[in-house]
Amino acid sequence: MCELLGMSANVPTDIRFSFAALARRGGETGPHADGWGISFYEGRGCRAFHEPEPSARSELAKLLRSAPIKSRIVIAHVRKANRGRVSLENTHPFSRELWGRRWTFAHNGQLRGVKKWPLTWFRPVGSTDSEYAFCWMMDQLQARWPKNPTKLPSASQLDVAVAELCAKLHGLGVFNMLLSDSRTLYAHCGKRLCYLTRRAPFGTATLVDEDWRVDFSRETTADDVVTVVATKALTRDECWTDVERGHVLSLRDGAVRILKPGARKAVAAGPCSAGAPA
Amino acid sequence: MCELLGMSANVPTDIRFSFAALARRGGETGPHADGWGISFYEGRGCRAFHEPEPSARSELAKLLRSAPIKSRIVIAHVRKANRGRVSLENTHPFSRELWGRRWTFAHNGQLRGVKKWPLTWFRPVGSTDSEYAFCWMMDQLQARWPKNPTKLPSASQLDVAVAELCAKLHGLGVFNMLLSDSRTLYAHCGKRLCYLTRRAPFGTATLVDEDWRVDFSRETTADDVVTVVATKALTRDECWTDVERGHVLSLRDGAVRILKPGARKAVAAGPCSAGAPA
Repeated sequence: MCELLGMSANVPTDIRFSFAALARRGGETGPHADGWGISFYEGRGCRAFHEPEPSARSELAKLLRSAPIKSRIVIAHVRKANRGRVSLENTHPFSRELWGRRWTFAHNGQLRGVKKWPLTWFRPVGSTDSEYAFCWMMDQLQARWPKNPTKLPSASQLDVAVAELCAKLHGLGVFNMLLSDSRTLYAHCGKRLCYLTRRAPFGTATLVDEDWRVDFSRETTADDVVTVVATKALTRDECWTDVERGHVLSLRDGAVRILKPGARKAVAAGPCSAGAPA
Repeated sequence: MCELLGMSANVPTDIRFSFAALARRGGETGPHADGWGISFYEGRGCRAFHEPEPSARSELAKLLRSAPIKSRIVIAHVRKANRGRVSLENTHPFSRELWGRRWTFAHNGQLRGVKKWPLTWFRPVGSTDSEYAFCWMMDQLQARWPKNPTKLPSASQLDVAVAELCAKLHGLGVFNMLLSDSRTLYAHCGKRLCYLTRRAPFGTATLVDEDWRVDFSRETTADDVVTVVATKALTRDECWTDVERGHVLSLRDGAVRILKPGARKAVAAGPCSAGAPA
């Protein structure tokens, strides 16, 4: 298994606090020592960093912890290899262009038999079932909305289409996934995924993996909305909500909408039920 | 105009010496302060770094100068924007997947009217004429060798096809370009490009842009062959060969082959005529 970290926000937001926890799980507080990667969207573009080595001992990961890259959509991944050898081309997140948008994908889990599904336009560079599944999703979207840029799907049409594709992949095994087209962050829970929305009034939070505490009221303005999605809770004093298996989150500007299996529309998520500081 | 740097080698090779010169031209010894990027191939995979800020003042560029990433194919670029605003999505090198290979492209020059050429499968994410030209090249290659992985072009067929596409783009303006499919490094000279091959017996070299001297005989083994391609000579005491306008270099394992306009085959480049230490 691997671990995932995603963020959606309505203002460019510093992910260093959450990334610090993930990076330590890459070979230090967790066993995910077979590579790591992180992609920061900046408008239509994306800064992406990948290393097939443990993040806990990486100079580059250290630089990213010291230099604030602010972004509204982030996808990060630490890898414990099961399918596909440890190498750069097998290191998540993967990326492709479709409809003139840069898409980014990271996955944890295993998908039995996905490589028998046919591909037309997109092909994997590496040998993971994860990248294959991503290519299959891109292929299906391209087939449905081929090449006429005036007839691309609306955001809500795309929500439903992505959820349908996730449901098919969910049938093959474990499909915990993060995906973005530079506008929306999608998260599918195959087995384990949780999220947390921070908004005013902001409280403080302490990482599970190291002794780092942040007072978000000092880092934010009253209108900021930031949602973090992760395999396991990253902080110990906030209210993380488990995503139900088979559900897809569609996150835009930090706002969370949920698509249940077979749903024709995403619905806004309710507030955190536990009443914790977040 | 921008500046290009490419490398092809038969063993994983440290590019820091050459990159140091290029990075300084990004806003210090040169005016190319509108972004920089570098891609290091590692087998089928690629580590890529992009910033829409001057490389001369970049913490990331500083890290890349201190940490040796060894690679057999490198493409780097510092940007002086003329078409397309300064932004991450307009920062070279650009990258796409075709035939399950990761392709990387960087360009300097301007191409009048290229955006009127039709595109089918590949679309630009940013607004540069450069990325558009890259998408057009990928489109043309995909159209010619569509999707049957058993019928992909041989390396020499691809040499000729790439040279033909370069010749067409050359007709639109200035097309100095580096391109790789993870196997071959292609370089087209539209107006200005030079190269240098280092092999045994290795000598010493001193950068043009800063007081850094390297004794390659201490950094290499007798079988190493390393070719560096650049807009302008990076060292002051080696024999750089100017590429003729309209010529394409095809570099594999450091060996240089040249395709003249209309050639049906690449021919091996002759030795450096000036007899300098390289």
